[in-house]
Amino acid sequence: MASTIRILGIDPGLRRTGWGLIESRGNNLSFVAAGTVRAPLDGEMAHRLVVLHKGLTEIVRGFEPEEAAVEQTFVNKDASSTLKLGQARGIALLVPALAGISVAEYSPNSVKKTIVGAGHASKEQIRMMVSVLLPKAQFDSDDSADALAIAICHAHHRVSIARMKALSA
Amino acid sequence: MASTIRILGIDPGLRRTGWGLIESRGNNLSFVAAGTVRAPLDGEMAHRLVVLHKGLTEIVRGFEPEEAAVEQTFVNKDASSTLKLGQARGIALLVPALAGISVAEYSPNSVKKTIVGAGHASKEQIRMMVSVLLPKAQFDSDDSADALAIAICHAHHRVSIARMKALSA
Repeated sequence: MASTIRILGIDPGLRRTGWGLIESRGNNLSFVAAGTVRAPLDGEMAHRLVVLHKGLTEIVRGFEPEEAAVEQTFVNKDASSTLKLGQARGIALLVPALAGISVAEYSPNSVKKTIVGAGHASKEQIRMMVSVLLPKAQFDSDDSADALAIAICHAHHRVSIARMKALSA
Repeated sequence: MASTIRILGIDPGLRRTGWGLIESRGNNLSFVAAGTVRAPLDGEMAHRLVVLHKGLTEIVRGFEPEEAAVEQTFVNKDASSTLKLGQARGIALLVPALAGISVAEYSPNSVKKTIVGAGHASKEQIRMMVSVLLPKAQFDSDDSADALAIAICHAHHRVSIARMKALSA
């Protein structure tokens, strides 16, 4: 009997961090919740990170995911933007890990390949495939759709890893 | 009468994060403590950030600084290294802010200018000037010396800001 695992996907950003929760049971996926944590656009950087930390902590405490996955993005104009994105990613990785949850990382290409079957899918293709794979999914931004895509990507990979382990046992 | 302010300086890095505590009273500075938080070199990124979070949280709780300052570095080889440094910086900014402490940021050049008087000082010059300005200072790494330099930089800037405010009042 396959057990049900609740997975939290996170698409981190300094302004908007998308999150999406799904449940995976064998090959079956179901939608739990999704949303966007919005941090203030200006003010002290440390305070903006505290808002992100608070938002993600509430989600982890409220929904109690068992595994988490975060997108590994660094497609940015310059070093300064990449550093800022890194700061938001640091919080996105930290919050589930502080709750004792293991956090996997996936590149945008590997998320797109898993969901759409190609590494160069558009945002529209991602949204469409998320809606096909999770018919009940509701998302309020591209970021929360991406977060659900990351959670789906992790659900697929963890099943493959479990199968490989079973074959080699 | 000038009041005493305890300042925490942080030089963040994924492997080694230097920290240094000083007390500032008017123009007088004194050394409190300094050290280095060492995170594991490999393993899950989220776990490495948890180790950094734990180390910095213990310092903030143990020494109760009233203000904090973090170096604004992004001098790195590639986007991937900059992103990783950003993740460590995110934790360095978050931990004092979660304790309700305001966190200033200074560029490496502005730290060097404040300490040595020139924007292109070497690590040796920084260490030497930290020892001159804080005769009792003990540090276990270049990172903790840098962290003390950042704390000194903040002590100077906050006095200048207070003077400007007093003049314009």
